[in-house]
Amino acid sequence: MYAVIIAGGSGTRFWPASREHLPKQFLKITSDRTMIEETLDRVRTFTSADKVLAVVGKIHEEVTKKLIGSSVGAILAEPFGRNTAACIGLAALKIKQAAIDDPIVILPADHYISDLEQFRETILTAAEIARTGAIVTLGITPSRPETGYGYIQTSAPAGEMLGRRYLDVERFVEKPDYRTAVNYLNQGGYYWNSGIFIFTARAILEEFERCLPDLSSGLHEIEAAFDSQDYEKVLESVYQRIPSISIDYGVMEKTTRSIFVIPADFAWSDVGSWQALYELRSPDYDENDNLLLGEAMISESRGNLVYSASGRKVALLGVEGLFVVDTPDALLVADLDHSQDVKRFPEILKGIAQTPK
Amino acid sequence: MYAVIIAGGSGTRFWPASREHLPKQFLKITSDRTMIEETLDRVRTFTSADKVLAVVGKIHEEVTKKLIGSSVGAILAEPFGRNTAACIGLAALKIKQAAIDDPIVILPADHYISDLEQFRETILTAAEIARTGAIVTLGITPSRPETGYGYIQTSAPAGEMLGRRYLDVERFVEKPDYRTAVNYLNQGGYYWNSGIFIFTARAILEEFERCLPDLSSGLHEIEAAFDSQDYEKVLESVYQRIPSISIDYGVMEKTTRSIFVIPADFAWSDVGSWQALYELRSPDYDENDNLLLGEAMISESRGNLVYSASGRKVALLGVEGLFVVDTPDALLVADLDHSQDVKRFPEILKGIAQTPK
Repeated sequence: MYAVIIAGGSGTRFWPASREHLPKQFLKITSDRTMIEETLDRVRTFTSADKVLAVVGKIHEEVTKKLIGSSVGAILAEPFGRNTAACIGLAALKIKQAAIDDPIVILPADHYISDLEQFRETILTAAEIARTGAIVTLGITPSRPETGYGYIQTSAPAGEMLGRRYLDVERFVEKPDYRTAVNYLNQGGYYWNSGIFIFTARAILEEFERCLPDLSSGLHEIEAAFDSQDYEKVLESVYQRIPSISIDYGVMEKTTRSIFVIPADFAWSDVGSWQALYELRSPDYDENDNLLLGEAMISESRGNLVYSASGRKVALLGVEGLFVVDTPDALLVADLDHSQDVKRFPEILKGIAQTPK
Repeated sequence: MYAVIIAGGSGTRFWPASREHLPKQFLKITSDRTMIEETLDRVRTFTSADKVLAVVGKIHEEVTKKLIGSSVGAILAEPFGRNTAACIGLAALKIKQAAIDDPIVILPADHYISDLEQFRETILTAAEIARTGAIVTLGITPSRPETGYGYIQTSAPAGEMLGRRYLDVERFVEKPDYRTAVNYLNQGGYYWNSGIFIFTARAILEEFERCLPDLSSGLHEIEAAFDSQDYEKVLESVYQRIPSISIDYGVMEKTTRSIFVIPADFAWSDVGSWQALYELRSPDYDENDNLLLGEAMISESRGNLVYSASGRKVALLGVEGLFVVDTPDALLVADLDHSQDVKRFPEILKGIAQTPK
């Protein structure tokens, strides 16, 4: 069984802790380890280090090597981001050489999952189903009408595997508006799209050929250059012209192959904002519901998140519902309810956003 | 005519911008110049540089020299703070040698006054009255039931000088509670004690002899050592034993000499907190009532004060009524309504409070 950790991200939502050169998978925010290390820990519950690949952007290759280089089989660097389809295709090509019919688990590097044992069991079930040639995805039971996630509509149960039921996918739907999300919840049978997929190299490469022929021919070109001196050059030239498209939109919404959803029974989050981070870490609050990532002195303050990475003393007095992100060259003080708007600052601050920490 | 700028302060209320080594008179908060420089500018409207003395603590001697050393007649350093009576006594001794019957204007270095011309005229009137041997003080017409200031109760008008009326002092009263302050305002005839006094050296030294004989004899000892090699040693030994007492409590509340109040017609503040500073600088707000001392990027935020002295980028998003004080080694994020409580932090942070910037 193989695992592919995919790590993209523009480093905007967690600015100024995250930067273009240091998106959130490289931050210690969900625990005292980086998110990509935590993802690797999860992966290691179901497979061995040599069967793990990480696909990252060229600008993140060094930091990835430093963090997990000695604990994975390979790190594949993309010259630049071309969305998830290209990145998964590249990994599938690589794995195909060794094991075309083994299940591959695709996992984003920057997600939060609480229950390792539940996760492991769900993945093992998914892998068994994927061995039949199907595409499997993990669906998260929605706890609120979230508009920041894609949804998967399911129909009647398709079967049971290792004591766990799985469902037929009716369709993948993009991020809904609030009203639609409420309808999904009331209607039932909808799951959040976790971005975790399980399939064999054979299955996904066939689907690329069918659904994304341009991408597929590009991948064949890259494959022919594997282990040659021209590899980097070919990779870059192919990446210049292949479409930038997500696996969801490019394959999942189009394929006629069997796709199944396994409802996941663990807490999951894509940690899409400082507020999302604050909410999922409630077990780590102090007695006044403050979440302190780094040292801070807190007085008469409640429900705040402090991320302190500058080595300076940070003090809060009489404030509520804020997040304070203190880094060596930039400081953000904001309302947690506004955490979706953080991305506007890196745009203003192009210069700063590109400064590696 | 002489002027004595007195500069004490523990550097706690404006922490972390202010420190023990750098109390607020040395900060650029009321304008783009330090408060002590602004005080000197005010003084220069009524007298010449050589007739200006500054009395400062030893630990502030260097910074004072750097800021105003070339624009004053002398800087007297106290080995440590012994409150205003000792500090005024020391200056009066020095001035007595040259001009025992000239008016001396005592001004704290860390007050805010808006109208230089009104200020000058008020001081000139006070000086004329002081020449008669009386003690004169400027009283500020209270605009609210402030509990952070001392009050002066006045009785019927005592007379008029240079077209300006002055009043007999009935009594000096310490900072009242809120209910009492409201009564003062309703009753009328009460003024805020500005801490600005005008008297001759002869008058005040006589009062020291009468009201504070211990302090007075200490001052005589210091006087005898002026210009001798032992001066520093004598000064320190006297300061070790003289009482630490304010001029208000030690002299003003006890003397039987004539004390007059001139009601001042200019805006005045002792700038006792970040909130007080925010309020008095309303002309400098941006279009959303934010006061930016240093650079900051502001989005969807209203009514905040940002003091940025670290050279880092500071960004505010979706916040209201905060003050953010960003210095190279410490950061404070607080609610403006809590600005009176800032002083609790330097106590916790003894180490940091003592770090010179």
